[in-house]
Amino acid sequence: MASNRGVVYLGPGKVEVQSIDYPKMQNPKGKAIEHGAILKIVSTNICGSDQHMVRGRTTAPSGLVLGHEITGEVIEKGKDVEYLNVGDLVSVVGGQADYVLVPYADFNLLKFPDKDQAMAKIRDLTMLSDILPTGFHGAVSAGVGVGSTVYVAGAGPVGLAAAASARILGAAVVMIGDLNDERLKHAKAVGFEPIDLRKSDNLGDLIEQVIKTPEVDASVDAVGFEARGHGNEHVNEAPATVLNSLMTVTRAGGGIGIPGLYVTADPGSKDEAAQQGNLRMRFGLGWAKSHRFYTGQTPVLKYNRQLMQAILHDRLPIAKVVNATVVSLEEAPQGYQDFDKGAAKKYVLDPHGMIRKAA
Amino acid sequence: MASNRGVVYLGPGKVEVQSIDYPKMQNPKGKAIEHGAILKIVSTNICGSDQHMVRGRTTAPSGLVLGHEITGEVIEKGKDVEYLNVGDLVSVVGGQADYVLVPYADFNLLKFPDKDQAMAKIRDLTMLSDILPTGFHGAVSAGVGVGSTVYVAGAGPVGLAAAASARILGAAVVMIGDLNDERLKHAKAVGFEPIDLRKSDNLGDLIEQVIKTPEVDASVDAVGFEARGHGNEHVNEAPATVLNSLMTVTRAGGGIGIPGLYVTADPGSKDEAAQQGNLRMRFGLGWAKSHRFYTGQTPVLKYNRQLMQAILHDRLPIAKVVNATVVSLEEAPQGYQDFDKGAAKKYVLDPHGMIRKAA
Amino acid sequence: MASNRGVVYLGPGKVEVQSIDYPKMQNPKGKAIEHGAILKIVSTNICGSDQHMVRGRTTAPSGLVLGHEITGEVIEKGKDVEYLNVGDLVSVVGGQADYVLVPYADFNLLKFPDKDQAMAKIRDLTMLSDILPTGFHGAVSAGVGVGSTVYVAGAGPVGLAAAASARILGAAVVMIGDLNDERLKHAKAVGFEPIDLRKSDNLGDLIEQVIKTPEVDASVDAVGFEARGHGNEHVNEAPATVLNSLMTVTRAGGGIGIPGLYVTADPGSKDEAAQQGNLRMRFGLGWAKSHRFYTGQTPVLKYNRQLMQAILHDRLPIAKVVNATVVSLEEAPQGYQDFDKGAAKKYVLDPHGMIRKAA
Amino acid sequence: MASNRGVVYLGPGKVEVQSIDYPKMQNPKGKAIEHGAILKIVSTNICGSDQHMVRGRTTAPSGLVLGHEITGEVIEKGKDVEYLNVGDLVSVVGGQADYVLVPYADFNLLKFPDKDQAMAKIRDLTMLSDILPTGFHGAVSAGVGVGSTVYVAGAGPVGLAAAASARILGAAVVMIGDLNDERLKHAKAVGFEPIDLRKSDNLGDLIEQVIKTPEVDASVDAVGFEARGHGNEHVNEAPATVLNSLMTVTRAGGGIGIPGLYVTADPGSKDEAAQQGNLRMRFGLGWAKSHRFYTGQTPVLKYNRQLMQAILHDRLPIAKVVNATVVSLEEAPQGYQDFDKGAAKKYVLDPHGMIRKAA
Repeated sequence: MASNRGVVYLGPGKVEVQSIDYPKMQNPKGKAIEHGAILKIVSTNICGSDQHMVRGRTTAPSGLVLGHEITGEVIEKGKDVEYLNVGDLVSVVGGQADYVLVPYADFNLLKFPDKDQAMAKIRDLTMLSDILPTGFHGAVSAGVGVGSTVYVAGAGPVGLAAAASARILGAAVVMIGDLNDERLKHAKAVGFEPIDLRKSDNLGDLIEQVIKTPEVDASVDAVGFEARGHGNEHVNEAPATVLNSLMTVTRAGGGIGIPGLYVTADPGSKDEAAQQGNLRMRFGLGWAKSHRFYTGQTPVLKYNRQLMQAILHDRLPIAKVVNATVVSLEEAPQGYQDFDKGAAKKYVLDPHGMIRKAA
Repeated sequence: MASNRGVVYLGPGKVEVQSIDYPKMQNPKGKAIEHGAILKIVSTNICGSDQHMVRGRTTAPSGLVLGHEITGEVIEKGKDVEYLNVGDLVSVVGGQADYVLVPYADFNLLKFPDKDQAMAKIRDLTMLSDILPTGFHGAVSAGVGVGSTVYVAGAGPVGLAAAASARILGAAVVMIGDLNDERLKHAKAVGFEPIDLRKSDNLGDLIEQVIKTPEVDASVDAVGFEARGHGNEHVNEAPATVLNSLMTVTRAGGGIGIPGLYVTADPGSKDEAAQQGNLRMRFGLGWAKSHRFYTGQTPVLKYNRQLMQAILHDRLPIAKVVNATVVSLEEAPQGYQDFDKGAAKKYVLDPHGMIRKAA
Repeated sequence: MASNRGVVYLGPGKVEVQSIDYPKMQNPKGKAIEHGAILKIVSTNICGSDQHMVRGRTTAPSGLVLGHEITGEVIEKGKDVEYLNVGDLVSVVGGQADYVLVPYADFNLLKFPDKDQAMAKIRDLTMLSDILPTGFHGAVSAGVGVGSTVYVAGAGPVGLAAAASARILGAAVVMIGDLNDERLKHAKAVGFEPIDLRKSDNLGDLIEQVIKTPEVDASVDAVGFEARGHGNEHVNEAPATVLNSLMTVTRAGGGIGIPGLYVTADPGSKDEAAQQGNLRMRFGLGWAKSHRFYTGQTPVLKYNRQLMQAILHDRLPIAKVVNATVVSLEEAPQGYQDFDKGAAKKYVLDPHGMIRKAA
Repeated sequence: MASNRGVVYLGPGKVEVQSIDYPKMQNPKGKAIEHGAILKIVSTNICGSDQHMVRGRTTAPSGLVLGHEITGEVIEKGKDVEYLNVGDLVSVVGGQADYVLVPYADFNLLKFPDKDQAMAKIRDLTMLSDILPTGFHGAVSAGVGVGSTVYVAGAGPVGLAAAASARILGAAVVMIGDLNDERLKHAKAVGFEPIDLRKSDNLGDLIEQVIKTPEVDASVDAVGFEARGHGNEHVNEAPATVLNSLMTVTRAGGGIGIPGLYVTADPGSKDEAAQQGNLRMRFGLGWAKSHRFYTGQTPVLKYNRQLMQAILHDRLPIAKVVNATVVSLEEAPQGYQDFDKGAAKKYVLDPHGMIRKAA
């Protein structure tokens, strides 16, 4: 039996690669299962929701193995798995480790049709495990379609994935706002209109400079509850800033997609209301403009097959858009630190060196 | 030329029937138009949004002629009106008066196909001018469908219209919550499950007593920004109470329809944040449950024709459900007072006595 | 191990109850599976698609165990079944026998929440296994909504289920056409407008007599390829009759739902083109009216949970609408004969006498 | 008052530029109207549906002024027109002439926001008047989305517009079939996968050579009733060929968009059934695959604004895709002849020389 390693959360700001148990064909209670498959992890990414945990802003317990974005190779399967074979390359919601068990494998795993083709595009396909469907869901739920003008709040990986999704959905123009120089430069380099939120606390003005009108058809919140203010206020946390600014700049009848995480309680906040999960929202403004708000986690299985098709046919260069950066498992803790500082990169962990070998 | 009268807002709590100008075939700037029609008002209803104005909680100026829910008879039309004839009975968004001008008459007016049949059902058809489409939009946008379990906040006319809409949309069970005895009794009498919000501040418990589970598939906010607390808090205004409680009782993945009015600023509120249009919302709770929120005014023309069909074929007894109560134009000020006190009635003004004559 | 019996197709018009193998926890190739469950069949219905087979109009082989509409009790389950327990009452697509194995039980079976309540409504709930979702899909795909005027072709069980579905979807009026006296009388008795197709070959005229206009908003084909002509032509098969007549009576922009079966080849037809699966369709007529056509089998799992909710809350009396008639397994061959002659009944087989005992 | 000229249909194959009446502010019965506007035509295109008329395959009367795709400049407006000014550049469904009257101008005309910008893109924007929305509707109604594999039947202008629409909707791959060398070459040159239908009567084989599977997610019929056979049969008309082949190559559960014209009667056909509007369709095949069929004319106003946005922001180079070719009004008869022979061009008439001047 092979050894196994995972990226383990030890407390706010502390992350370490540790030896962990090798997965067994069992459910969490120890009951044997025959519908599962064990994957050798080909790639697993650092996600903003992992980062919220690492910052100590959620209820993650110490000792948790981080991560959930996984692409892997089937190396063992239960008797009841009928549609997969050992050796298949698959995408799933999983963890940051060397090996992992996935239950109900026939239902949960998206198989790539051609293994060689898949390894050649593995830096793009690894984004199917969460970030790309999440950005896509944000754009779709905001109502982005052919000819839409779109504003995305946040130029981190989810914001960039939402922007790339808006583009393939036919958006006429996609703007993306942030407070970070490096991220704004990268957003521009991959074809979006950067909006520097430090320049003004009036987002409508900034948008008007690009599209001659201060309102957009659709907007996406790819920031969430750790938002900071705009303009002079950008150094301070202000958890409802993004939501309120999106109501200001989204046209009457428009939609707001909210893949950015909001939490039921935020003990680490300096704001007393926010600690209890309350936000000061300008909801009457949204009501006056007949806005629709879509929240919550993404139904990945709803989108991953069609997005895979778009990647395999060279329509969606998502690795380039999010600046996929491959590192070893050992480099994961450094990756968390750099990501926390705002690196304009999407870190992809390569535990077995398979990605670097394929390149 | 006939004289004209309207129900005029004079200041908080003050309403009077006054002589007003007879409508002319002109736009507000005095330019002659040929696409309009002048209606003799057959019925016009007191609406909750009029009531918000009368309470002084909006920016309505003194001197405003109140009302917008109108059914009328075409008595004069411009040269360019092609699809309507003098004598036709029509539904429209208009005003509380004797006579009114409607521009773009061919587009804005819904003609009833048979005048006699329409007069026989005028107490139902008058609800097409706003309240019924508004309740219907609330139910539709919440995602109510066949087999849905539904909770409607507020047993006033819009809440009852939303409940009736949920029923004709195929809901399995429709609950309706309020703080007012008379309204709860009426809701029960017309076939809904009443929820007495004074009994507990835990809405989930009250719902569980009816359907054995504390969550519903869809919910509708028919209260808006003048909400009061639940349980012991029901005597105090708490503008986000309804929104927060709907997030609590709507299941993960469910929808929340919000026809209840929220305002961009509420100078009359005792709550400082609410004065500036800020609500303390538990938005993270909604996010954790992947809720969808639909706000804003109703696109009446999208729904009024199909709802008319349902009324004319005896599928939607909306007059009975909202307890339509016909009064004369002179009785309108008294109607506003009684409605403000929570009368379980929907007041229908009958300026020319045509409804009482038809009955 | 218990013995087992099934209703077996022996050739055109020949059906017999025979002893068959008791199900094993294996897939068809003999491989053991742990995700399945064995059901004791509580009810199983005779369906029109079984009837097409019995008439010899499809490619069904001799020796086939008929049936697919099943409600059963879990009496054994594989190790991997996690959400069901022995004793649970469930709905599924299955077969006409005493016992049956269902694979992927956690995914395929709809569990009734309360067994006693379910047995009390078993004559309604048995319709969830196919006919009700099929009729519902026909109505939904035709675009039936609140206020729709609807025409359903065929007053057999699927037509009645489509009509009941149209009603709970809020249709203003539901007409149902047939050539059979008994079925027309029954359709009228359960609240629909019967259209006697022998009276005229002009369906629009017959519809106009009911709703004053010869066109409807939506229509459903619950007849399929064994259609006969209208009016004087009603004694002869004419496979495109229903489709062509629905194009005639559906309004411009309307939808046509087609749950009625059409086959890729019909060797038993007298029409040479039909033998090869060709229909003479007036497609240009449909095009001129911008019709939408929805075909194919029903995704039962998409609808059965919400329809169960509607039944359990007394909103959908489907047993009464389709005239559910309970018979023993031994009476199945007679049931096929009577159904073939046009009995206005939906036969429910009760292999273990559990339904009659519960009544 | 200026003189006026139009392209007039004189009989099968005969088209002439003639003097016609200058438009008046009147409806067809001579009644003065105030909601109309007179346009000076900037561009007007030859459309396949004009071509069907010119071939004598429809009921068009001799003397008809051809054309309906118009872009124009407002040169006079009625008193009731409020949202347009003289000088505005607008898109509309109109006619092939020098000048034309458009009723309900405020509702029917799409105004280009900036006249200079619009003239610079006039060869693209002229496609908004019909062909682009028609192709877009075909793709949308077929269910084309991000990652779809798509087959478009017909590489004429509508087929190319459907293909361009599929691309901006995010299709993974777009194939386009035709029998004409020049059109196939052009389709390839603008980025689509050409399918030469003369090579085989098995369309699935041809598709499999491109995408490794013989079925697509969505397909579009941009040919209509004048279809010819595939493979060896390509010299003969066979009106159901395209529809039947699309059922063959569209996957189970897929959609078929049908912008191609089908007629209620086709007196010019050699096929007796087709003369009466009957097609021999393999409808049972479509049923077995649960296909959806969407027919009819396009609701242009539903799409033209968003498509204009996509053009103005350089996302949709439709002029290049359809090979827009500008000719004078006098050259229209020649254009009809060349188009009839299968020229891989979309002819744009330029009655006042404004387009050539702007270039």
